[in-house]
Formats: sequence, C-alpha cells, structure tokens
Amino acid sequence: MEKTIHGIAASSGIAIAKAYRLETPHLAAEKRTVADVEAEIARLEAAVAKAKEELEAIKQHALEKLGEDKAAIFAAHLLVLDDPELLNPIKEKIKTEQVNAEYALHETASFFISMFEGMDNEYMKERAADIRDVTKRVLAHLLGVTISNPSLISEEVVIIAEDLTPSDTAQLNRQYVKGFATDIGGRTSHSAIMARSLEIPAVVGTKAVTAEVQNGDIVVVDGLDGQVVVNPSPELLAHYEEKRARYEEQKAEWAKLVDQPTVTADGVHVELAANIGTPDDVKGALANGAEGIGLYRTEFLYMGRSELPTEEEQLAAYKTVLEKMDGKPVVVRTLDIGGDKELPYLHLPKEMNPFLGFRAIRLCLEMQEMFRTQLRALLRASVHGNLKIMFPMIATLDEFRQAKAILLEEKEALLRQGVPVTDGIEVGMMVEIPAAAVMADQFAKEVDFFSIGTNDLIQYTVAADRMNERVSYLYQPYNPAILRLISHVIDAAHREGKWVGMCGEMAGDPIAIPILLALGLDEFSMSATSILPARAQLKQLSKEDAARIKETVLSLGTAEEVVTFVKQTFSLA
Amino acid sequence: MEKTIHGIAASSGIAIAKAYRLETPHLAAEKRTVADVEAEIARLEAAVAKAKEELEAIKQHALEKLGEDKAAIFAAHLLVLDDPELLNPIKEKIKTEQVNAEYALHETASFFISMFEGMDNEYMKERAADIRDVTKRVLAHLLGVTISNPSLISEEVVIIAEDLTPSDTAQLNRQYVKGFATDIGGRTSHSAIMARSLEIPAVVGTKAVTAEVQNGDIVVVDGLDGQVVVNPSPELLAHYEEKRARYEEQKAEWAKLVDQPTVTADGVHVELAANIGTPDDVKGALANGAEGIGLYRTEFLYMGRSELPTEEEQLAAYKTVLEKMDGKPVVVRTLDIGGDKELPYLHLPKEMNPFLGFRAIRLCLEMQEMFRTQLRALLRASVHGNLKIMFPMIATLDEFRQAKAILLEEKEALLRQGVPVTDGIEVGMMVEIPAAAVMADQFAKEVDFFSIGTNDLIQYTVAADRMNERVSYLYQPYNPAILRLISHVIDAAHREGKWVGMCGEMAGDPIAIPILLALGLDEFSMSATSILPARAQLKQLSKEDAARIKETVLSLGTAEEVVTFVKQTFSLA
Repeated sequence: MEKTIHGIAASSGIAIAKAYRLETPHLAAEKRTVADVEAEIARLEAAVAKAKEELEAIKQHALEKLGEDKAAIFAAHLLVLDDPELLNPIKEKIKTEQVNAEYALHETASFFISMFEGMDNEYMKERAADIRDVTKRVLAHLLGVTISNPSLISEEVVIIAEDLTPSDTAQLNRQYVKGFATDIGGRTSHSAIMARSLEIPAVVGTKAVTAEVQNGDIVVVDGLDGQVVVNPSPELLAHYEEKRARYEEQKAEWAKLVDQPTVTADGVHVELAANIGTPDDVKGALANGAEGIGLYRTEFLYMGRSELPTEEEQLAAYKTVLEKMDGKPVVVRTLDIGGDKELPYLHLPKEMNPFLGFRAIRLCLEMQEMFRTQLRALLRASVHGNLKIMFPMIATLDEFRQAKAILLEEKEALLRQGVPVTDGIEVGMMVEIPAAAVMADQFAKEVDFFSIGTNDLIQYTVAADRMNERVSYLYQPYNPAILRLISHVIDAAHREGKWVGMCGEMAGDPIAIPILLALGLDEFSMSATSILPARAQLKQLSKEDAARIKETVLSLGTAEEVVTFVKQTFSLA
Repeated sequence: MEKTIHGIAASSGIAIAKAYRLETPHLAAEKRTVADVEAEIARLEAAVAKAKEELEAIKQHALEKLGEDKAAIFAAHLLVLDDPELLNPIKEKIKTEQVNAEYALHETASFFISMFEGMDNEYMKERAADIRDVTKRVLAHLLGVTISNPSLISEEVVIIAEDLTPSDTAQLNRQYVKGFATDIGGRTSHSAIMARSLEIPAVVGTKAVTAEVQNGDIVVVDGLDGQVVVNPSPELLAHYEEKRARYEEQKAEWAKLVDQPTVTADGVHVELAANIGTPDDVKGALANGAEGIGLYRTEFLYMGRSELPTEEEQLAAYKTVLEKMDGKPVVVRTLDIGGDKELPYLHLPKEMNPFLGFRAIRLCLEMQEMFRTQLRALLRASVHGNLKIMFPMIATLDEFRQAKAILLEEKEALLRQGVPVTDGIEVGMMVEIPAAAVMADQFAKEVDFFSIGTNDLIQYTVAADRMNERVSYLYQPYNPAILRLISHVIDAAHREGKWVGMCGEMAGDPIAIPILLALGLDEFSMSATSILPARAQLKQLSKEDAARIKETVLSLGTAEEVVTFVKQTFSLA
C-alpha cells in the first residue's frame, strides 16, 4: 500500500529503488542450563561454520567490489574463527558449567575483549574489536537473528535505517546505494552531512521509516522536499520519475557553471567554497566548481584509529589537499574534537554537557604537544599551496592570542631548523560562540579573517542542542538574533579591512543566501553539491538590491517574519 | 600538622570548629556461599537490631532538635525494620540458597523497591524510598562500615564532604553546623547557594578537603578568602579568631543599614532585593534588609516529593511569601526545571546536553496542565501582596507571547468564576539566553520588566558549562561580551520605559556593583547575606561618577582588563 512519510530533506535529488533495511539487532545472551552439552557444542560449531561461510562470501565480494583494504577486515575476522584459544574455552565452559552456547560465547569473548583492550599494545586492541564483531555474528546465528551485511549489497537499493554511523557508511558501495532514509537526525547530523558528501539523496528524521518500510518495498527518497514514498502507485511513480528527470536536467544546467566565477547580476564577485573532511573530498569540491576550500575539518585524520596521527601523516594529508587545490585558498580548521566528536584514545572524562565542555581550542591549548604537532604539519605543508589556518571555538581574546603565539613559536622553530614555511599565512578564527560574535570588533584587530560557524553559533545563541529533537524547534538560522550577530561580525571585520566567510550549513541555504549577500558576506563555504545551485542563484541576485533589505531584516522580531519577508522580496518558493 | 587548602569562597564569614566528615560509602553486596546458615541469620538479626537502636536514637534526637516532621521520617524507617514481610523473605533466601546476609538483603530489598516503585500509588512509592534508606543502614552494619548521621550532630562542627546535596542539608542542624568545606562545586553550585541561604561560611571546590581532613581535626573555614586551614598553629588560630571578630564587627556595622533605603552618594535610589527558594527564606531576606524579592525560585515546591504540588499547596506558599513581604515587590519565576534540576516523577528522557535541553519555559509550554496550575495558584495569590511574574529561559518572542497568552487565559477563566485576581500584575522575563539579550529591544516592547539571569547568560554566551571545572576558567562575569549584552538589555528596556533587574550571583559582587550601577541597572537581587554589604558599598558610590566609566568598560577587550580598571577606578581590594 502506498504511504508517504515526511522527514527532513538532507541531501538533494530523487532516488527510486528497493528498500534495504540496515538492522542493528539487540543480541541478548541470557544464561540457561542445558542438559545435553554435546548437542550445545554442536550448535556452537554449526553457528561458527555458518559465520565462516558468510565471512568468506563477504571477503570475496569486498575484494572484488570495495578493494583489498576493506577485504582485509573480513580476513582478520576469519582468523578469529579459526583460533582454538578462543573456541576451546567456550566449549569448556559449556561442558563444565552446563550452560547454553550463547552465554558461554558471550562470557568468554568478553573476557578476551577486556583483556586485549587493557593491553598497551595497539595490535592487541585491534584484536579486541575483531573479536567483538565476530562474536556478534556467531551470536546472531545462534539466536537465529539476521544481521545486515551492507558490504554485500549488489543491486540498486535505498538504505532504510534508524541512523547511519560513519562505520556503517564505510561499508557502503556507492555504486549500488542510491539513497537513504533514517528515523533520526537533522540537516546537520552526521548522516545528513555524509549523504551530501556522497552526493546521494537522503531524507532524515522521519521518525517512522524503519517502522513503515519492509525489505524489498519500492521506495522513493525525495531529498528535495523531504519525503519518502513507500510502494508508490504507478501514477505517483511516474510523477517521481519525471521529477527525477527534471532535477537531472537542472543539474546539467548547473554543471555548465562549474568553471565560471561567482558574480552577482550587478557584477560583484563573492567566493563559493566547499567544506571538506578528507583529501578524497577535494575531487567532489572541484567537480562542483569550488573556488576554494572554506573549511577543511581535520578531525577525520584523528578519528577511527587508536592513536594520534603523526606529523608526517598529517603533512601528507594537508599537502595533498593544497596541491590538488592548485593555488586556490584552503582554510584549515585546527582540531575540533570533543563535544559529540570523541577520540577514545585521549581518554577524556565524560561531561554532563559536552557541547559546553572541554573541546576544540580549549583542549588544544591544554594538550599542547598534540596541537603543536598539527601546527608543524600545517606550517610545513604551507609551501605546497594557498594555506590559511583558523582556530575553532574561540571565546576570548586570550585564547586567540595564545593559539596564535603557539603557531608563531612553531614557525620560528621550523625556520631556525631550515624548514621552509610560507610567509604571511593568514590566521583566522571561527566565530561560533556568542561572546566572540559580540566582541568581533576587538577580534577583528587581531585576526586576518573570520569564518562564521553557524551550526554552533545558532545552538549557543538560543541555548538549544541541535541534536535534541525536543528543542530543535529553537534552532532557527533566520532568528533575527542570529542575523544581527552575523551582521555585527561582518561590519566589524570590514571596518578593519578583514574578510568574512561562513562555513555552517546556512551558507548554502537558498533563503539565507540573499540575506548573507545583503549583510556583506565575502565567502560562502558549503557542501560541494550546494555550490552550483548557489552560484546559479547568486548570478540572478543584485548585491545593491539585496543591501537594501538589510535594515528591514535586522529590525524584524521573529524567524518566521524573516522567512516570509525574504521569500516575498526575492520570489523564492 | 597545619595545612592550608585553597578553594572557592562560597559564603562569607569565618568558622572554627571540629571537622565532621560526611561519608557516602559505596556499599557492595557481593554474593558468597555460606556453610552455616543459622549463624548468617543471626548476623542479619544483629545488624537489624543495631540499626533499630540507632534509628531510635536518631528519631528521639530529631524530635527534640529538628521537629516532628523530620522525626517522622525515622519513625517510618523503624516500621520497615519491624515488617516480617520484608525480613522473612531475606531469612528464607539465606536458608534455601545458602548465601550471605548482605546479598540476601540486597536482592530481597531490590525486589520490593522495584515493585513499590512500579506502582501507581504515591504511598507505595514512598515506601520504596524508606526501604532503600533502611537497607543501606542495615547493609552498613553487616559490612562494618560507618555511615554518617548528620541529624545526630550535637556539638559545633564544620562539615567536610565531597559535595552536599539538598537532602544532606535537610538533615543539618543549623545550631551546630558552623561551616562547611567541599571537594567540588563553584560559587553558583547548589552547595554554595545553600551555604549563603543558611548564612554559614563555606569554601567549595577545594578538590582536596576530604583527602586532607580527618574527623576531629580543628578546621578553619575562611569563607571570605576561600581557604580551609586544618589544625592551625596557636598563632594562626589567633589570627583567624581576630579575623572572625573583625568580620563580626563589620557585620554589626552593616546591620545598622537594615531599615535604610539604598541610596547612592548622589541620591539615586536603586532596589536591593533577595533571591529566595522557599517561604522560610523570607525571614532571612527581611532580616538582611531586602527591599523586595527579586527572584523567588519555585522549583523547590516541586522537588523532594513524588508528585506535582497541587494548586492549593502552591497557593499557600505564594500567599505566605506575599503576606510576609507585606506589600514589597515579589518577583516569582515560574517553574525552571530540567537541566541540572530533575524531577524524577516527570520521567523526562535523559539528554546529552541538559543545559541546552528541554527545560524551564520550553517544558512548561508543552506540559501545559502543570504550567496552568502554577499560573492559577499565582493569580489567586496576587491579591495578597505585590506580585510580579516572570518566565525563565525565554529565547524567542514566540515563547514569551505564548506564555503570556496562557497566563491571560487563566486570569480570564478565574475572573469568570468570580475568583479575585489583582489587575495589572507585571509580567516579565528572565534574560539568560544570548538571543533574548540581543533581541532585547523587541522584547522590551512586550514585557513589563527584565530580570537578567547572569548565571546562565554567562555560560551560554561563552559556551562553557559552569559546573565543568575544565572550562570554568571561561565563566567570567567581567567578560566584556557579557557587559555589552547587559548594557544593551538595560538601554533597550529604558528606551521603552521598562525596568531591569538582575538575579544572578553577579548582582551581589563588589566588583560588578559599580559596573552595573554605571550601566543603569534598576534592581539588584542577590543572596540575602550580600544585601547589607552591597548597600554599604552603594552608599559610597556616585551614580554620576559611575556612569562615566560605561564607555571605557565596554570598549575593553578582556575580563582581566575590566577587573583591573574597575579596581583602580573605585579603589577596591
């Protein structure tokens, strides 16, 4: 039966394909007493055999479709299942304690996992992760529960999931995954950002998609209007096929703008840049016509591993990005870890309010060795392109001064060692804390540029966690309080002859773009896929016309009034 | 050996007394097999007997010293220990399972606790709490562990604790508890606020006091300079005795100002009001010369109980406060629950960032029955005094409009029923979210007054949880960003002819007071004990002189510069 589910449009485009449910079942290993221990051991062996068969198939598939590095993960899992040091104690436990295989497996595996995790040896710690994954697979077979193997997908599908973690998406094959729809998340959640980076349509925050969609249902993911249609009627299917075709046509139109500069109807140039997370993202940025990188998030270098990246590893990444961008500006944000982005190997204490906690520059100024290593890698990379450096989460002048002083110290030290460093690297800061926005006139005297991080600035200014659905109604980019702060930052910077970028989601938003143009924003940095539509929009706008609305917008009382006014003024849908 | 421990001065004065450590031991009830079950049952019975003896003594003491209501708690505990329905199953378990008494007690009690807690009956839920307390006491006897009985204190002591919860302080006898020192907390933590409300010297956030102080040590708590001295030498003891005497003298000087109005040296009147939490606090407010109540926190009515307070209960509390204040203004803040203030019976989901979460007005606008009940109680109380109502955590105009509309609906409904309600009750809002401060000019058109809540405003403006010690260095009241927001709020209100109060800790701070006078603050609301020192200070200041520093202060770059400038200008220590 046809059903339409509403959600949040997280990544543009229309996907039509069969549903593939990504299951994350809860696998309980309750203790039972068993009478026939031999039968129980046979059950265990059968489950292990099935798991091996499955892993062999996955490994083979990964080797063919995803490359050797991903196949290696599954080869390691197979080794675990051949290890008598793990399997014998499980069988022993079933025999001596007369317990069920699930329980014996879980208890024994937990013992090894905590033992390996406790070791001060990275190789052993990785084994703990392998054992955890393999145990889950065998346990699922024992319990007769299906677990998903997204790496095995070999036909076009739309992924249906409660949420997608970075590790889930690592296993996805972009050739077959046409779109996805999730129960939770918002436009700025990881799954949404991931979808835009993969350039596949996505609808998030539907609340209901896992409850309403079965494997094999035909699903339309409308990432333009934030809707998921399940088993559409032939008429509706035809409608979406046409919508998809029209969107593809529009994309083709936009594609013609790839090599054009971004110039408004009255001849004013603004810069459209891309937000990236890894050197791999540069390709997409350039393919979408980015005039620079407005935000290179360096966290990914530090994540999904068990120790800090070395200076050489970082240098390689920064150099790659700078070289690929070939002289175009690259704004690198120093490490913004903490908050919702944890690094397990730093062993940071749990915080009651991580978004108001020990993160980003606060952490870097204390863990200086880590910070200095990153700064050295950046300084050494500077000779390979047009590097600009900015510090995240600056709240006070003291913090900016300290961070800049450390940067200069490292620069001097490198120069003394004869290591070449580009002179006059621009050093700026993120404006994402209300105090920094309010004090922008003071900061403007000391920075080379600002980059406004609206994702955080909004949540702090209205004191509402953007990930918390009960208060997300307060997360309004068009709240006039936000617009006033942005305006104040831009005016303050321009008075000191400095430029201002924006690297939050807001910079690519069609309703925000005329407002930001009116307020005088110099650089708009966004998901690569938003760049061409933004360029098309900016070519139609006149900066002089836009500037006329500035005063009115800033005098409005509510976000709703702003949206209504801007839509009317600029004839937006 | 003499030792000095540094901490945060949380409540003024000097206390010198013997140390009393408030212990909160971890009581583990690990399972053991016992051979002699009869001996184990005898152990249980002996522990129960000791607990009963102890409870009898505590009950008798409470009856004499703390009053009947507190004694009733312990009478209920004694009843639990006489209940065969609890004791027999424990003995049965020891017998049939051959387990130790600790384990049998813990398992059986847990069963009853979860059963009672699951019932939809308030009386039964209270029994669960009784069983939990009693089980802890018996378990401590079984394990030979000492637990503290602060209600039994019968000599002058200084309490030494990791932290003090509201329930700990409920048991304290003000006659004997002369001061306290804790490991954790800051000037705005509950323990600090509690100390000022009890008017006893306190030093918090020492990190080390429980590690360094033994029961019976002689301890000096210097709540003026934030120091704890353990076993002082005779010379140092004499020094502190003299310091205490000088402070008492100064207090006597201040006491002369109780009935005087607060007038600056150049004849300008400002209002000095008190922050209170319960009707009992009114006495202290009046004794300290409060000209009004600037903040009546109504949360306490909702806390430490198992269901919402009824309209009649609330009416009684509000009426008491209004009548006792005898026509002086009383600003009541509607329920500010959520964040760090949980109400277990509302069963709110855990949040990742509670300070940025579903709390205060956000929660009240959704849980409207609860909100309307409070508003009706307030409206009915209005005829008994000079009531003003304000809403907490307002971020947007929409929220204020909704809250005010609900208040008016309830007022109309009461009037239709013939219930008298005062006309023209002033309706205001807390300014504690940066967005509200930035938009103060818009809000000023719709409110009757503002009350600036600096505790929250500071933490949101600098994006730092004030309870998180790793980032508390950013919690700076003198950050010029905060002062600019305060100034903007005051100017915006005055342009619309509205008045502005402040009810954060900052309002009573000797360095902040000249600045706030310069910015034009109309009402300063603070801990009762800060009122007389503030009045003494304000009598020395000229508003005209102060106003001259406004521009300079707002143009400074850092909190440090502000403090240095103000200290120099006003010759403060």
